Amino acid sequence: MFQGKIKADFIKTIIDATAILVDEAKFRLTGDGIYGRTVDPAHVGMIDFKLNKEAFDEYNCQEETEIGVDLDKLKSTLKIAASEDLVNLEYNKDEGRLVVTIGNLKRKLALLDTTEMADTKIPSLDLPAEIVVPTVELWQAIRAAEAISDHITLIADKDGFQMIAEGDTDVVELKLSKEQLYSLKCEERVRSMFPLDYLSDMIKVARGKSDEITINLGNDYPVRLSFEMAGGYIKIVYLLAPRIESE
Amino acid sequence: MFQGKIKADFIKTIIDATAILVDEAKFRLTGDGIYGRTVDPAHVGMIDFKLNKEAFDEYNCQEETEIGVDLDKLKSTLKIAASEDLVNLEYNKDEGRLVVTIGNLKRKLALLDTTEMADTKIPSLDLPAEIVVPTVELWQAIRAAEAISDHITLIADKDGFQMIAEGDTDVVELKLSKEQLYSLKCEERVRSMFPLDYLSDMIKVARGKSDEITINLGNDYPVRLSFEMAGGYIKIVYLLAPRIESE
Amino acid sequence: MFQGKIKADFIKTIIDATAILVDEAKFRLTGDGIYGRTVDPAHVGMIDFKLNKEAFDEYNCQEETEIGVDLDKLKSTLKIAASEDLVNLEYNKDEGRLVVTIGNLKRKLALLDTTEMADTKIPSLDLPAEIVVPTVELWQAIRAAEAISDHITLIADKDGFQMIAEGDTDVVELKLSKEQLYSLKCEERVRSMFPLDYLSDMIKVARGKSDEITINLGNDYPVRLSFEMAGGYIKIVYLLAPRIESE
Repeated sequence: MFQGKIKADFIKTIIDATAILVDEAKFRLTGDGIYGRTVDPAHVGMIDFKLNKEAFDEYNCQEETEIGVDLDKLKSTLKIAASEDLVNLEYNKDEGRLVVTIGNLKRKLALLDTTEMADTKIPSLDLPAEIVVPTVELWQAIRAAEAISDHITLIADKDGFQMIAEGDTDVVELKLSKEQLYSLKCEERVRSMFPLDYLSDMIKVARGKSDEITINLGNDYPVRLSFEMAGGYIKIVYLLAPRIESE
Repeated sequence: MFQGKIKADFIKTIIDATAILVDEAKFRLTGDGIYGRTVDPAHVGMIDFKLNKEAFDEYNCQEETEIGVDLDKLKSTLKIAASEDLVNLEYNKDEGRLVVTIGNLKRKLALLDTTEMADTKIPSLDLPAEIVVPTVELWQAIRAAEAISDHITLIADKDGFQMIAEGDTDVVELKLSKEQLYSLKCEERVRSMFPLDYLSDMIKVARGKSDEITINLGNDYPVRLSFEMAGGYIKIVYLLAPRIESE
Repeated sequence: MFQGKIKADFIKTIIDATAILVDEAKFRLTGDGIYGRTVDPAHVGMIDFKLNKEAFDEYNCQEETEIGVDLDKLKSTLKIAASEDLVNLEYNKDEGRLVVTIGNLKRKLALLDTTEMADTKIPSLDLPAEIVVPTVELWQAIRAAEAISDHITLIADKDGFQMIAEGDTDVVELKLSKEQLYSLKCEERVRSMFPLDYLSDMIKVARGKSDEITINLGNDYPVRLSFEMAGGYIKIVYLLAPRIESE
C-alpha cells in the first residue's frame, strides 16, 4: 500500500519531464521516494528521475512496488489542480488502481501492466567536462537555434562554453566565458552535436524551475544534463545521444 | 420604443448563457426588464432568464415588445467593450434595428423576424431534492469527468451530494457532505444521469460570476440549475433532460 | 561599417510595421538613422519610416549603405529579446551578414541582394483635410467594422470625423466631434473608402505605442496615416490607396 500527498506542481513536473520521451512509463514506489527511468522508443533520450519522499507532505510506502502509468491520463487528471494545490496519491495493489484526490474530487485511474515494460539500464559514460550553466542562457540559445537548424553543437574548453547552430546561411552562437558560468571543469576541449528537438524539450523542463543545469560533455559522445528542484528533493537527469557531424 | 444602458459584462453574460443552446433567440422587452426563454433544437436543454431592469443604469420601455436576435452578431458587437464599459441599447419598432452604442461607436443591427419563432413553455417538474453547491466544486468535477466520459450521474441523499462519471477503466467522483454544501433538502435518495457537454456549458456560464448553483434533482428526471448574479438582478435557470442509464 | 545598440521594442516595431506589407525590405543605414520605404506587391499600401539615431543607445555609421532584410527571419531572431532588452546590430559590408547580438547570444544573418530591389518613390498627394484622432477610437471602429464588412469609409468635415462601414444589413459608425479630436483642419467635406484589412494592420502597429494618429484625407484619394513613438525618434508614415465606391 502506498499513500503520498504532494504539491501538484512537483508531481506535474515529473510527469511532464517523462512525457517528453514516452507516453507510458514505469514508476518505482519505494521507502525513499519515487523513481523513474525510461528511454524513448528511438533510444535517443533517457530520463532518470528521483522524487525524494521529502518532497512530499505525507509519504507512506510499506512495500516497494512498481506501477505502469499512462502519462497523458495522469496529466489530464492533474490539470484541474493549481500549482500549490495538494494532490493525494493512493495505490493499493489489490485494487490495482491509482486513486488521485484533489480537494473533494477523486479519480480512480486504471494502471498499465508493467510486466512487459523493460527495465532501463543507465550506460556508464566517461564524460571529461562538467559545465554548470544558467538555464536561461541555454533556453535562449535553443530558441534562437531552432529558427535556423535542427541540431546544435556544444563545445567546452578550459576558458568557457559555447553552443553553435549552423543553418544554410545563418549562424547562431552562444558564448559564455568561465566567469559567466556557475562552474567549469574542463581540461581538454570537447565537442558534440545534438538534435535540437530533444534538447529543447529537456531544457524546457528545467526552465523556470531550476536556475542552473549541469552539463557533462564529451567528444562525439552522449551528453548528461542534470538539474534539481524543490530544494534538491527532486532530481532529474537526462542523457541524450549525439548526432554524428558530417564534416 | 426601448432604451437601456447596462454594463457590458451583464449583457454579455445573458447572450453567452443563451448561445450555448441556440444561435438565434427571442427576447421579450418589458416594463420590468428583459426576458428570454429558449430550448435547443434537440430539446435537451432549456434556458429561462430574467435581466431585471434594476441591472440597468438606464431603462425605458414604453411598450412591451419582442425582438429576434442573432446571438453571434450581438456577441461580436460586444467584443470591443470591456466588462465595465456601458453599452447603450436602443430599439425602435419602426426602424426595426437594434442600435448598440459603446463609447463613440454605434452599430445598427438588423433583427430577425420573430413571427416564426415558437414560444417556449416551461414544463412543470416535480423535483424532490434541492442542493445548493459551490460552483467551483461543480466545475472541477465537470472538467475531470470530461477526460473520461461523456455523461455524469448526480446523486443526492439526506447526507450529501455526489457526482460520478465512469469511463471504460477510470472513475471520477465528487463527494460533498451536508457540511460542504450551502444547503441540502433531500429526504429520499435521488439519482439522474446527464450529458456532460450540456452540463459543462451551463456550469461554465455561472463560473466566476456566481459562487453557488442551486440544483433541483429527481430520479431519472430533468435537472434544474439556477443561479443569480448582479446582486440578484440577473437570474438564469437551465433545465436539462436526463440520459437513461443502461444498467 | 555600421553598429547600433537599441531597445528590442523599437526595432521590433519597425520590423512589424514593415512586415504587414512585404516579406523582404530594403533598409538604408545613414549617418542620421535608419530609413525604410516599401510598397506592397499589390501597390495598395506603402510604408515610409525613419528610425532616428537618437532612438539608439549607441549608433555608428561611417558610410551610408543599404541592406536587404528577410523580415520574418529578423523577427524570429528578435523573439528571444524582451521589450526592454538591448539588441546590438552590426553590419560589415565585407562580411555581408548582419550580426544581431542579444545578451551572450549572437546570430549572423545572411542578407538579401538589394540590387534587384526597386526604390520606392513617394507620390505627391494633395490631401486637404488633417485630423488627429485617438488611436484607441480608430482601433475600436476597425474591430467593430471587421465583423460586418471588408471596407470602411472615412469622412471629415469642419465639425468632426466619421468612420462608416456598411454590411448587408448592419451598419457600424464612429462619430467624433471636433472636441473629441486632438485636432481638426478641414474646410470642405472629404470622403474616401478604404480596404479594412490594410487599415486594420496599419492601425494595429500604432496601437499601444502611440496615443494619436494623424490622418490626411481627401476625396476618393489615398489616405496618409502617420504616428510617432519613442519621443518622436521613430516616425512611421503609411499611405493607403482608396477603394472606389460603387454608388
